[in-house]
Amino acid sequence: MVKVGVIGGTGYTGSELSRILCIHPDVELAALTSRQNGGRKVSEVHTFLKGYTDLVFTESISETPDLDLVFVATPRGVAMHEVPALVDAGIKVVDLSGDYRLKDVGVYEEWYGHEHVDVDHLADAVYGLPELFRADIAGADLVANPGCYATAAILACAPLAKSGLAEDDVIIDAKSGTSGAGMVPSPRLHHPACGESIIPYSVGSHRHTPEIEMAVGMFAGNGMEVTFVPQLIPIVRGILATCYFRLKDGADADTVAEAYTARYGGEPFVHYVEEPSIRAVVGSNHAHVATAVVGRKAVAFGAIDNLVKGASGQAVQCMNLMLGLDETAGLGFPGLGV
Amino acid sequence: MVKVGVIGGTGYTGSELSRILCIHPDVELAALTSRQNGGRKVSEVHTFLKGYTDLVFTESISETPDLDLVFVATPRGVAMHEVPALVDAGIKVVDLSGDYRLKDVGVYEEWYGHEHVDVDHLADAVYGLPELFRADIAGADLVANPGCYATAAILACAPLAKSGLAEDDVIIDAKSGTSGAGMVPSPRLHHPACGESIIPYSVGSHRHTPEIEMAVGMFAGNGMEVTFVPQLIPIVRGILATCYFRLKDGADADTVAEAYTARYGGEPFVHYVEEPSIRAVVGSNHAHVATAVVGRKAVAFGAIDNLVKGASGQAVQCMNLMLGLDETAGLGFPGLGV
Amino acid sequence: MVKVGVIGGTGYTGSELSRILCIHPDVELAALTSRQNGGRKVSEVHTFLKGYTDLVFTESISETPDLDLVFVATPRGVAMHEVPALVDAGIKVVDLSGDYRLKDVGVYEEWYGHEHVDVDHLADAVYGLPELFRADIAGADLVANPGCYATAAILACAPLAKSGLAEDDVIIDAKSGTSGAGMVPSPRLHHPACGESIIPYSVGSHRHTPEIEMAVGMFAGNGMEVTFVPQLIPIVRGILATCYFRLKDGADADTVAEAYTARYGGEPFVHYVEEPSIRAVVGSNHAHVATAVVGRKAVAFGAIDNLVKGASGQAVQCMNLMLGLDETAGLGFPGLGV
Amino acid sequence: MVKVGVIGGTGYTGSELSRILCIHPDVELAALTSRQNGGRKVSEVHTFLKGYTDLVFTESISETPDLDLVFVATPRGVAMHEVPALVDAGIKVVDLSGDYRLKDVGVYEEWYGHEHVDVDHLADAVYGLPELFRADIAGADLVANPGCYATAAILACAPLAKSGLAEDDVIIDAKSGTSGAGMVPSPRLHHPACGESIIPYSVGSHRHTPEIEMAVGMFAGNGMEVTFVPQLIPIVRGILATCYFRLKDGADADTVAEAYTARYGGEPFVHYVEEPSIRAVVGSNHAHVATAVVGRKAVAFGAIDNLVKGASGQAVQCMNLMLGLDETAGLGFPGLGV
Repeated sequence: MVKVGVIGGTGYTGSELSRILCIHPDVELAALTSRQNGGRKVSEVHTFLKGYTDLVFTESISETPDLDLVFVATPRGVAMHEVPALVDAGIKVVDLSGDYRLKDVGVYEEWYGHEHVDVDHLADAVYGLPELFRADIAGADLVANPGCYATAAILACAPLAKSGLAEDDVIIDAKSGTSGAGMVPSPRLHHPACGESIIPYSVGSHRHTPEIEMAVGMFAGNGMEVTFVPQLIPIVRGILATCYFRLKDGADADTVAEAYTARYGGEPFVHYVEEPSIRAVVGSNHAHVATAVVGRKAVAFGAIDNLVKGASGQAVQCMNLMLGLDETAGLGFPGLGV
Repeated sequence: MVKVGVIGGTGYTGSELSRILCIHPDVELAALTSRQNGGRKVSEVHTFLKGYTDLVFTESISETPDLDLVFVATPRGVAMHEVPALVDAGIKVVDLSGDYRLKDVGVYEEWYGHEHVDVDHLADAVYGLPELFRADIAGADLVANPGCYATAAILACAPLAKSGLAEDDVIIDAKSGTSGAGMVPSPRLHHPACGESIIPYSVGSHRHTPEIEMAVGMFAGNGMEVTFVPQLIPIVRGILATCYFRLKDGADADTVAEAYTARYGGEPFVHYVEEPSIRAVVGSNHAHVATAVVGRKAVAFGAIDNLVKGASGQAVQCMNLMLGLDETAGLGFPGLGV
Repeated sequence: MVKVGVIGGTGYTGSELSRILCIHPDVELAALTSRQNGGRKVSEVHTFLKGYTDLVFTESISETPDLDLVFVATPRGVAMHEVPALVDAGIKVVDLSGDYRLKDVGVYEEWYGHEHVDVDHLADAVYGLPELFRADIAGADLVANPGCYATAAILACAPLAKSGLAEDDVIIDAKSGTSGAGMVPSPRLHHPACGESIIPYSVGSHRHTPEIEMAVGMFAGNGMEVTFVPQLIPIVRGILATCYFRLKDGADADTVAEAYTARYGGEPFVHYVEEPSIRAVVGSNHAHVATAVVGRKAVAFGAIDNLVKGASGQAVQCMNLMLGLDETAGLGFPGLGV
Repeated sequence: MVKVGVIGGTGYTGSELSRILCIHPDVELAALTSRQNGGRKVSEVHTFLKGYTDLVFTESISETPDLDLVFVATPRGVAMHEVPALVDAGIKVVDLSGDYRLKDVGVYEEWYGHEHVDVDHLADAVYGLPELFRADIAGADLVANPGCYATAAILACAPLAKSGLAEDDVIIDAKSGTSGAGMVPSPRLHHPACGESIIPYSVGSHRHTPEIEMAVGMFAGNGMEVTFVPQLIPIVRGILATCYFRLKDGADADTVAEAYTARYGGEPFVHYVEEPSIRAVVGSNHAHVATAVVGRKAVAFGAIDNLVKGASGQAVQCMNLMLGLDETAGLGFPGLGV
């Protein structure tokens, strides 16, 4: 059994980590921290865990000795103050916050709007999308867990971007359930405002734009220009990214399909399917990817559960790789379907 | 044309008042106040009014002279500081806040949790449910507009309570769309928390409990004991109140139906129907009421749009009565249906 | 008063026509037909009309003499069997079905999958989008009311297409509420299947594709290639069309904005706004259009209520023009906002 | 490993059984039958199972030899034609259809509206609610799996009914997600009809009424009269049953709480909690039960996932008991929480 902890155990990604880790067969979930809930039983706050854990929230991760790995599930800007001490103490880290995703510190500071205080570790961080960077993750001490939109979009785009079949600019029209925005109430997430609507926001300015460009570019070996428009839809869990490419001469539905089949044929969590469905993946770490060719355009769809494959499930998948466990351990449950 | 104003023009009831009043054929909407939006165009904040009004938010109602009537759409506890000056200046008032609904100041202070600072006018306020107290409203200077849950429940219960066919205790299981809770974000109204759930709250302690007891009691001429359980459902607009009575010997489906037919047969906004439907009334000032007799129990349903018949539409209906206009003026639009 | 009838009064567009027409100040709604409900009171079927009409469904429009105009709200393929007799009898017609939208009968037969049996009247039909073809509609005997997706997309795209600022291929990622699919239950519209998901369908094969290409092409004076991906979202009413253009050199946010301001500045129902919002227009005949420029791409948003501006409201707007009434008569109600 | 099959593998309960059983550690899922999908791969139809099973739908359960247990997930009225041959062949059966729940054949025929053709096995069937009838289930050859509403209501009511603290009539106001109605599209389940509403139906005539009366009566040892009003709410999964009792003299919040604590203190799947939450149990086999005392009324809440604890999860729990496995095997996953 490996011994792990979570910094920031009350937010949605911390909550989802606790849901997965408390039944992971190879893990002892030894610590969940929470500033406001320190001393309370975890199952009093996360009532879905009644019967699963007697753990009590602690205020600081340092109260728990001998951790093999720590998940940092704090807001962006906070994580980079937590990570250095952990890594320097020899504890492996998966950061879910966004602070270690953009390798170029200038790009980080431009899109996140504040200075990066831990440039040293940023250089060593590995981008935690296993289907693209599996070997690097397995050898990493610090993994930057991808963003939720970014995961759906990159999985949809990467095979086509690498194939050379399409032009190097892509339009990503993405739709997300509301849990992606976190647990802090806000006017946009207020049910009367969003419950019977679809709301575009951060058009052209969302932080996942440079993340998608960087990750697809690293994988494909050449640059890609992303136009990214996120939109909130009135569901709790799930993202659908609809990605539009212009095909080059000679490319057609068959060559496009071959690129995806070749890439994802052996993947345990990514499936190339006929029709993308959020319901097929909600509650699970699976992603469904589909394509269609319409005239000289290719449309690539990526569907995930934003809290699992888009956050905490993928973080556990990274942990499994980093600690030498079976990559699918603790994640072998299918989506709800209905 | 009568000249009216709204104190508190940015909240949901103020917003809905502006939507109705800006096309009311006999009304000049002369003032909408807002502390934070003072000086901004109303149609910039309420974008659904683009093309309907050039009005600009003012900070204080006193900036607009010669008002015939003012709607007070501020939070409870605030309204009772606004109302006295208006009434004393000879301006008629419809208060939507709850501060003038409970005639017994002791009951008010028990359920609202603070002192009432305007007991004098409280004594003169008329409870603004036209179908039960039409004549009193027509002669009133100050009307206390009913609560949203209370409107749905009272309309469903009143005929049976007055008929003498049922015991004098009733169970009211009420379900409300989320707009009833107002526009201030909160954890309970956060979409990820409520968007795919049904949430009971304030069980036995909701302020509409004594309001329903008082209004039905005044109308029926004898006391009624209310057990009231409100529950949030994931729709934006609409309330369904399901009310359970124990029938006395001799009462049956026919005598129950007669009580409702007799009461609502001539009403323009309340209809006694076969099956209650929120969709039939959403967007309108109509209420649908239905009944069923199951064994020795009677079930009475009341369905309304909480922002219209449950708040701003009913307030306009009261205004029409108070100012001698046609009771249905400005309210003659049907529900959405679909 | 003009005297009008509706063929197909029970479906969603027929239902919505009845909702609008029964309170239209210049219209006598004289007939609603329904095969299965012939002889029943309209307000028994459309219970939201209780108190608004004593009309009884008839089986055939021919039972009602002296009609000035008839709305045909039957399914596609059926309408073209109803229209000829009406037009030949000198009755003006607004057809909501799609049968008269595509001027090229070959394109119709390719996309609709069956022969067109009324090619003669097809040649005379006018495409009923008033903001683009107002004068033609005013002089028409037969108007083809636009599709719901098409309305949202064309209003968003037309100014930019005509401006010459963008390339002539556009990607339209459209999201629709479920009422756009009509009232016949189907697996895709079954609540458990679509209520917590977003479902792409008819990718590249939706009938509104050639309609958008035709209408924008007629208006802009040159061809436009449309890639159209419709997606169902779990709301009842509302469409958001997100349209992506590649800008030509020299075009920027200002020149784009000028194109929209110039086009829609004087329109009563189309408003060029900062942020598109379905809630601002739901329940009304208004459309909100917004734009953003991201790098060398322009994003144009169109938001409407699919049953009003996307169907029955627009049909009434066309009727007003065809009969010489005020274009906004009966349609002067704002969106719900909340 | 035990070897099990499912008759009726494409409906929602069959689908959910496949989701649970394909990862059950002690089970070989050997057969799923489907008339229309015979010969197709299961993961093509249930796409959420991609990566989990290579099983192919068969047309008849008899094609698979040596089954230890069969789940019958066909519609009511069909199951009683399937069960006899299985039981007579020595195969244990869990029937999810309702055909074997009501011990009194006269009551069955009255509420289900057709003759019961297998009265012999009906006499031997055990009602499969483990928390009330665990020992009987462990010894049964044929288990009648409880209805979804019934499970939520009985778990909420049973402790209080048995305690003697309340009168013997109870009002059950129940709200269900739409998946409880099954996968066949219908007007009531059509998204535009139910997606933004709450719809009461089968008031006083729902088949779970006698089922609740029977089960609580058997458990409590005396009769109980149930007034049951089911209502559809616009969520996919989840039931909340709100149950109202009149307390006898001497009963209070403490004695009520003691009844529940004593009953459910040691249960793995039923938890007595402060506040009932559908989100805490959705996706899991857990039930949350809560109570409140308001005046002389007690309110008992029961929250479950209708497809898991309300159907397929409970069926697996019964299977575990019938085959001598750990009762929680394959069901040890918490609810989604968010």
